[in-house]
Amino acid sequence: MKTIDVCLSPELMHLYTVHDRTVVVVDILRATSCMTTAFAHGIASITPFAKMEDCLALKDKGYFTAGERDGKKVEGFDLGNSPFEYMDEKLKGQKIAFTTTNGTQAIAKSIGAQEIIIGSFLNLSAVADYLLTDANNVLVVCAGWKGRVNLEDTLFAGALVELLKEHTQPDCDAPVAAQHLYNQAKHDMVDFLKDSSHVRRLAKLNIYKDIQFCLTADQYTVVPVLKDGVLAV
Amino acid sequence: MKTIDVCLSPELMHLYTVHDRTVVVVDILRATSCMTTAFAHGIASITPFAKMEDCLALKDKGYFTAGERDGKKVEGFDLGNSPFEYMDEKLKGQKIAFTTTNGTQAIAKSIGAQEIIIGSFLNLSAVADYLLTDANNVLVVCAGWKGRVNLEDTLFAGALVELLKEHTQPDCDAPVAAQHLYNQAKHDMVDFLKDSSHVRRLAKLNIYKDIQFCLTADQYTVVPVLKDGVLAV
Repeated sequence: MKTIDVCLSPELMHLYTVHDRTVVVVDILRATSCMTTAFAHGIASITPFAKMEDCLALKDKGYFTAGERDGKKVEGFDLGNSPFEYMDEKLKGQKIAFTTTNGTQAIAKSIGAQEIIIGSFLNLSAVADYLLTDANNVLVVCAGWKGRVNLEDTLFAGALVELLKEHTQPDCDAPVAAQHLYNQAKHDMVDFLKDSSHVRRLAKLNIYKDIQFCLTADQYTVVPVLKDGVLAV
Repeated sequence: MKTIDVCLSPELMHLYTVHDRTVVVVDILRATSCMTTAFAHGIASITPFAKMEDCLALKDKGYFTAGERDGKKVEGFDLGNSPFEYMDEKLKGQKIAFTTTNGTQAIAKSIGAQEIIIGSFLNLSAVADYLLTDANNVLVVCAGWKGRVNLEDTLFAGALVELLKEHTQPDCDAPVAAQHLYNQAKHDMVDFLKDSSHVRRLAKLNIYKDIQFCLTADQYTVVPVLKDGVLAV
């Protein structure tokens, strides 16, 4: 049986091998939820960058610039970190240069994997189905918050472990812990996360609508895949 | 209100400040459970070492040598990693040189804290009471397994968060996650841990009795404290 493991923070990535795995990068609030939404609405590609400057440099080449720092849209960028901004008709067929506090780092540390895909609750079942199409072991990489573990990414990891439990077996304790937390939270994830530090931080920015949407399963069926540094479906 | 945080793996210690905190080091299976048991049975001191050689060097000076590698007693050492070995009358008033796979590393990375104490389920309430005697913030450092998060140490951290919830507030998501897991597990921790990788590994060594004992709350009231590199009560 293939295995599933969960890396709860990018700071723990040196403990995991990726060369034999499909890595699912997750940053529920809100980078990978935005990416999923963007592809579901017809964006052509997303190029992730660690640095804002690298995003800006692509603006002249016709890219839309997108990203956040500490939960807020970057000044001068076209798009922020709310999934609702990515439902725009004008983005259809366009290219985005994207930077985020935590999500991009998680992608960067996953380089070398058999495959790197983007997961969120919005495409949860599609990701699970995708992972069953080959024999690769699975590693869910949680973006976390500045290196620390966060609840929402852990819950997504747990949801995936739960969904794949007939087909994959946990490699370690992290997937088991995540699965327990998800099963405890699944009936009302918004309520479960009310004590989460990230949700409290975002609530101050008044984005309940975003949080609720990002915790909704199976809105879309797209699975963004990273190829040569560029995400596409 | 003072704060409580949980570092789920020694590999994440660089993300936490310790100088203003009391650190509780925990390695439930089985280093800190052994240490607690030893002090409850009258041991004078325990000196933790990362290297086996450093332990052996103290043998000539009248120390008992203790420790494990990969769950097994070190060849030539006086004591292994079962708490039952530390209930021996002959250890009363004696000094122990102790090395473990994960526990010692957690202690080493906590150096610089206001205070470093040893926690286990066996002295859970005593540790909670101790933490309320001063204004220091609290950091629970889980020893984990070779850098990875493990369930049993996380459950102990959660038990402490739960016990102190009227007096401390979580600093981040890790204490919240740990608390949720503990509340889910507390009615039958042995059963809850049956899928834990560490418990499965130890079960192969046939030490169910140890596991059961190490998950029993409040057997003892001792709180070992580290001073100048030596643990004493």
